[in-house]
Amino acid sequence: MKPTTRGRVAFVGAGPGEADLITLRGAERLRAAEVVLFDSLSDPALRALAPDARWIDVGKRGLRRLPHVSSGGAEATEQAAINALLVEHAGHRGKRVVRLKGGDPSVFGRLEEELDALAAAGIESEVVPGVTAALAAAAAMQRPLTRRGSGRSVSLATAMTHDAGLVAGRHAETEVFYMAGKQLAALGRRLLAAGWPADTPALAVSRAGWPDELGSDHTVATLGDATVLHSGRPTVVTIGVGAAPLAGRTLGSDLAAGAAAAVERPAPVHRGRKIPA
Amino acid sequence: MKPTTRGRVAFVGAGPGEADLITLRGAERLRAAEVVLFDSLSDPALRALAPDARWIDVGKRGLRRLPHVSSGGAEATEQAAINALLVEHAGHRGKRVVRLKGGDPSVFGRLEEELDALAAAGIESEVVPGVTAALAAAAAMQRPLTRRGSGRSVSLATAMTHDAGLVAGRHAETEVFYMAGKQLAALGRRLLAAGWPADTPALAVSRAGWPDELGSDHTVATLGDATVLHSGRPTVVTIGVGAAPLAGRTLGSDLAAGAAAAVERPAPVHRGRKIPA
Repeated sequence: MKPTTRGRVAFVGAGPGEADLITLRGAERLRAAEVVLFDSLSDPALRALAPDARWIDVGKRGLRRLPHVSSGGAEATEQAAINALLVEHAGHRGKRVVRLKGGDPSVFGRLEEELDALAAAGIESEVVPGVTAALAAAAAMQRPLTRRGSGRSVSLATAMTHDAGLVAGRHAETEVFYMAGKQLAALGRRLLAAGWPADTPALAVSRAGWPDELGSDHTVATLGDATVLHSGRPTVVTIGVGAAPLAGRTLGSDLAAGAAAAVERPAPVHRGRKIPA
Repeated sequence: MKPTTRGRVAFVGAGPGEADLITLRGAERLRAAEVVLFDSLSDPALRALAPDARWIDVGKRGLRRLPHVSSGGAEATEQAAINALLVEHAGHRGKRVVRLKGGDPSVFGRLEEELDALAAAGIESEVVPGVTAALAAAAAMQRPLTRRGSGRSVSLATAMTHDAGLVAGRHAETEVFYMAGKQLAALGRRLLAAGWPADTPALAVSRAGWPDELGSDHTVATLGDATVLHSGRPTVVTIGVGAAPLAGRTLGSDLAAGAAAAVERPAPVHRGRKIPA
């Protein structure tokens, strides 16, 4: 569809947390933006990349503060409000808009609804990919998701579905569950029921990519032990081949006893949040 | 393990192609690097980020040109040569080394062998995640890998295994196959045998993230038609829910007739390869 206005929207994957895990292209789009729609989880440090843009919080709390948005709070209403804001700023006002999404926009980002709204309004759009949480967790803990000879596939899944509650299966050598934080014990039980052996390695990582990220080793049978450690934090859980520590680098956990061992992130080479000017 | 030298290695995901899909953190590590080990596929434009570093090509052809490396060319030999170079530069010479990997290091990056070699030598390491090819293909074609209500899981898999030849199953609502370029017809047949309906959408994308990237729409039954279009190019194939075009944006393909429709990437908002100085 041909664009009918000069406004446009770049959907940008912000990465899993810290501002410097955005891509150079994503940072460039932010620099050029006049309006940025962001969710509450985004790192405030990203604002330094677009200090003169108008930043609009479209997270749950942010939406409630906007004058034109109904306070109903149903998911469909929230999504409709975001769609309307995109069309208003890029379409009616002709602005360069960035829609910032945590992680990667194409993975659990509800991207299609916003793309559809823009297409219907004839507004040009672009998607800039980002680092999704599973990759950030694997990098931080130095647990590659694929292993030669034994890890040929990785599945990314949500533990929570929109309507069906908790779902878990056994589909790949390594399986990573997003949005699992509130249901770790139940997730472990579902995984056992799906046929994963009780002693399968399970790695829980919360706030992957942030300075206070935390990882802990468990098994499928003892995954519930992770609940207290990661309570209230965005958590991904890796199960199977990709959760196992590399040779000589167990993290002090006692899997047999089911003890959860919290591990600090590996010592980084250079730390800090330097963002190129 | 405590580091025994001041040298260190940062494994950096370069992203799927163009230099500006690396993360800010990855770019920063390149700027600080004294030695960069890279594979042949990396974008030459990345060199601008570390112009004073020593760049060593450890791709297949590059390795053969190095004086100390046997010309045997077996995979194990090649990996051993890379491990030895990492230990030589970061360990014996105490350099800041970047090991640049295409896409994300934790996904089909053979990361664990290099991490193991560094751990055995007591050399500090860090992993900086990157955009993996599946995400870049989804972004470029505006086909989100997950769809609300129908796309709850994504599987990333290699079509080719080290020893077992071509393997394909049906594990998730959306399945993305890496390194599938040479075997598209065979992959289609395996997918049919694994239970995918013949009319399941199949999207082939080659050189995702590059200016000459190419996408084409097929079905599982007609996937072989993609062979000519993507011949000789790194190709990922998306099957299932995440391969379907969004509403109102079919790409001119004629799936019923099995015709492959090559599509240019969607018009980008800003194009170019600007890299922050």
